[in-house]
Amino acid sequence: MTKRIGIDIGGTSIKAALIGDGGIIKFREKKTPESGDQALEVIGSLTEGWLEKSTGSVGIAAPGPLDTSEGIFLDPPNLPGWHGFPLKEKMEGRLGRECLVENDANAAAVGEFTAGAGKSCQSLVYITISTGVGGGIIAGGRLLSGAYYNAGEIGNMIIADEGPYQAGMNRGSWESLASGTALGKAAELELGLTGGAEEFFNLVKKEDKTAEQVYRRWLDYTARGTANIIHTLNPEAIVFGGGVMKAADVFFEDLHREVKGKVYESLREKVDIRRGELGAMAGAAGAAALETMGRI
Amino acid sequence: MTKRIGIDIGGTSIKAALIGDGGIIKFREKKTPESGDQALEVIGSLTEGWLEKSTGSVGIAAPGPLDTSEGIFLDPPNLPGWHGFPLKEKMEGRLGRECLVENDANAAAVGEFTAGAGKSCQSLVYITISTGVGGGIIAGGRLLSGAYYNAGEIGNMIIADEGPYQAGMNRGSWESLASGTALGKAAELELGLTGGAEEFFNLVKKEDKTAEQVYRRWLDYTARGTANIIHTLNPEAIVFGGGVMKAADVFFEDLHREVKGKVYESLREKVDIRRGELGAMAGAAGAAALETMGRI
Repeated sequence: MTKRIGIDIGGTSIKAALIGDGGIIKFREKKTPESGDQALEVIGSLTEGWLEKSTGSVGIAAPGPLDTSEGIFLDPPNLPGWHGFPLKEKMEGRLGRECLVENDANAAAVGEFTAGAGKSCQSLVYITISTGVGGGIIAGGRLLSGAYYNAGEIGNMIIADEGPYQAGMNRGSWESLASGTALGKAAELELGLTGGAEEFFNLVKKEDKTAEQVYRRWLDYTARGTANIIHTLNPEAIVFGGGVMKAADVFFEDLHREVKGKVYESLREKVDIRRGELGAMAGAAGAAALETMGRI
Repeated sequence: MTKRIGIDIGGTSIKAALIGDGGIIKFREKKTPESGDQALEVIGSLTEGWLEKSTGSVGIAAPGPLDTSEGIFLDPPNLPGWHGFPLKEKMEGRLGRECLVENDANAAAVGEFTAGAGKSCQSLVYITISTGVGGGIIAGGRLLSGAYYNAGEIGNMIIADEGPYQAGMNRGSWESLASGTALGKAAELELGLTGGAEEFFNLVKKEDKTAEQVYRRWLDYTARGTANIIHTLNPEAIVFGGGVMKAADVFFEDLHREVKGKVYESLREKVDIRRGELGAMAGAAGAAALETMGRI
């Protein structure tokens, strides 16, 4: 059996997965250190004993903005100590293996496509709603990278006339209106909540009137973005991931109905939205499969 | 030299093109008759003398909604006498050749990709702004049809909170806000104009204040949709076609600037928007090339 290694560098933890033909064999996680150089040791210990068992390149998922082809961190807001870190070069030196670097949402799309909710599909769009809103696109069985590796940057999609200011993003962008950050700000301002998405959705479950209003807006915006993707790409399935979607899980049918209401009538019964199956392991699982994925 | 035939059935005229390796060899056009059955004779005479010179399938571009795989017209609003017409079957009977049917915006995308403004590209999005707003996507050198042949339905993309009612479309959809129809209604309501896009843009050129306001709104909406496509697909180029874009030609630089202002800073210098090179011949030229195009 061929085994491959995938790493996922996140704002809070670094995850590592050993993947076989049937899916995830082993999964390990450690706190993300402050700098890229410190992370070399962390990744070394996370993959301890796996290098000799595995073949091919090691895939690494990392948060954007990223120079994917050179494998260099640019200036990810959640990882200030990593700005400009030449990940690919350093990791290849540390592991003695070729490393492939991909942005985290694209890697998660590959993960769900090769080993998760999209295994049966030829095309899918992975949408992650957590701190931000991101996406990864599989079309014709291949990862759609785009001409400058910027395909799937759906968080900056304009879906409304106005919205909160967010540095570097459009007014009325999906991320500024429906990300975990946006939802958190609205929940704090309108409900005095500071406990994140889970606390918020618990209040919605209790049928709190104000919470419900905030929720309805969030649902509308999330469905606008999703319907836009369906009309643009018409994928076989949309796969949702990210912490906000996890907290909103009990409301998944609401989202389905809301998306259906925003697509052409002829497409309504064909709307296929799914929960991701790999959860927080999607990025690492996808990273491990990067070498085997074609790109367009 | 291999020669191929392409047909483009539009609301006002049927166009036929004979295409060689170097591009369009011959182009003919006739008024669209009221019914599909009458069109068989029209298409027969348009392609007179071409069948013996050409090889392969005959490609036919037609307005949606369309059953592409069966080659059947559904209920295109501009062609009431054609509803339910089994185009593929009838044309194959008339011409004695296999016919491939594709929606008109997709065919125009293939035309600009194979013989027009996108010849050098591996990926492009063709955006047509005329009566409606439509699109066709080329990714990795192939036509992106989508799981149910509905990719590129960008006219229904939600880009604003509100907008004029349009049957079957979303409130705030691109088409309802920035199509030729939408622009015409605004020009009539706010300026008393009834002469279409050309008259309107002439008034903008004369720096009429009210016309300029209507124009600025149209520009903003058009740029929102275009920027959304760039952030979703990140194609090498965007190619514009359609009657409204033709009338707005002198303002193309405005559009370029407005789109740049709505994309990530790192993408600004990479925004490549182009005028289509084939004009009204794009659909027929692309139809002729359908057989040679891969699809995803």
